[in-house]
Amino acid sequence: MSGRFITFEGGEGSGKSTQVGRLVERLTARGLDVVRTREPGGSAGAEDIRALALNGAAERWSPMTETLLMYAARSDHLERTIRPALARGAFVICDRFSDSSRAYQGAGGGVDAGFIEAMDAAVVGETKPDLTLIFDLPVEIGLERALARGGADLRFESKGLAFHQRLREGFRRVATEYPERCRIIDASGDPDAVFARVWAAVEPVLP
Amino acid sequence: MSGRFITFEGGEGSGKSTQVGRLVERLTARGLDVVRTREPGGSAGAEDIRALALNGAAERWSPMTETLLMYAARSDHLERTIRPALARGAFVICDRFSDSSRAYQGAGGGVDAGFIEAMDAAVVGETKPDLTLIFDLPVEIGLERALARGGADLRFESKGLAFHQRLREGFRRVATEYPERCRIIDASGDPDAVFARVWAAVEPVLP
Repeated sequence: MSGRFITFEGGEGSGKSTQVGRLVERLTARGLDVVRTREPGGSAGAEDIRALALNGAAERWSPMTETLLMYAARSDHLERTIRPALARGAFVICDRFSDSSRAYQGAGGGVDAGFIEAMDAAVVGETKPDLTLIFDLPVEIGLERALARGGADLRFESKGLAFHQRLREGFRRVATEYPERCRIIDASGDPDAVFARVWAAVEPVLP
Repeated sequence: MSGRFITFEGGEGSGKSTQVGRLVERLTARGLDVVRTREPGGSAGAEDIRALALNGAAERWSPMTETLLMYAARSDHLERTIRPALARGAFVICDRFSDSSRAYQGAGGGVDAGFIEAMDAAVVGETKPDLTLIFDLPVEIGLERALARGGADLRFESKGLAFHQRLREGFRRVATEYPERCRIIDASGDPDAVFARVWAAVEPVLP
């Protein structure tokens, strides 16, 4: 049996992580070998890079430096976690992946899109997701949810409304550019309603 | 008055750092504004990345991940230290720079040279060194010196003779590929003799 690589993408407070948990539960209940992971992070080294990248003041890193840190973490994550799991036929469910670099550092931070694609080709190569769910939500609602939740990863949450608006547009553009693997998920409403949308997108790609 | 960007390169135990100190002293004595710095590191963020990149087991990071970490550190170093110093007309004397990525991760670690050049073009851009001194020494002598010295940055020193041989050849290739800015410095002999060679290379580029 061959596994699948499924990524969850979207802005702050879109409810992605809750839905990742639900999908992992549903697939595990079916007896599938499921690896739940996240970015930045997902391997010992990449989690160390995550701590460096996400903590500190909002302007601690320029968007360019941030992009390189994210791809360093992604490189380790692919080598140590994602590729070995896919090779043994597991399902890999990942909370954020390359499209977050395209949206956060590219659309949000102004890093040249061609540079991001060159890094992506070298680091990700053929290990592209089979399916990407892009959680879409009005920016005000997402930020309100994220601020209510709190937590340590506040560097991006503190960047202001205009940044988050560019972010949302960046994610929508990703969906247009990679229509074969991307599905936009309306992230409004209660978690049960959102999970019904998630499942409707995932079921067709199951073996 | 306009400053200069001078980098020191070479394998382990080549005496680079001692000679950086001597050159800084000599230029400072002439009344020049001199910034002594190093890679990986040279800015607060880049020093944090250095700690991550250089500590731990020899195989903690793949050469690809290592390359991305080094360029993340370089990006921060350029933005926060090197470019501001050059803009005010200072002399920047840097212990290691891009050529160490070409030699260590490229020639030594097998990372694709085209990928390194693409990152270098995006991160370093026009901030190329005016002069690069490549310290050259038989590998056995350099490693013996480095091991006698000890210290914390042992990840590369523990990589074995074949790696260090590729490293030396990598640095020599850099000198061939960028002859306009590179000078090979024979690093054998006592520090006074080596400094005489350093000074002979630096004096012609002084304003």
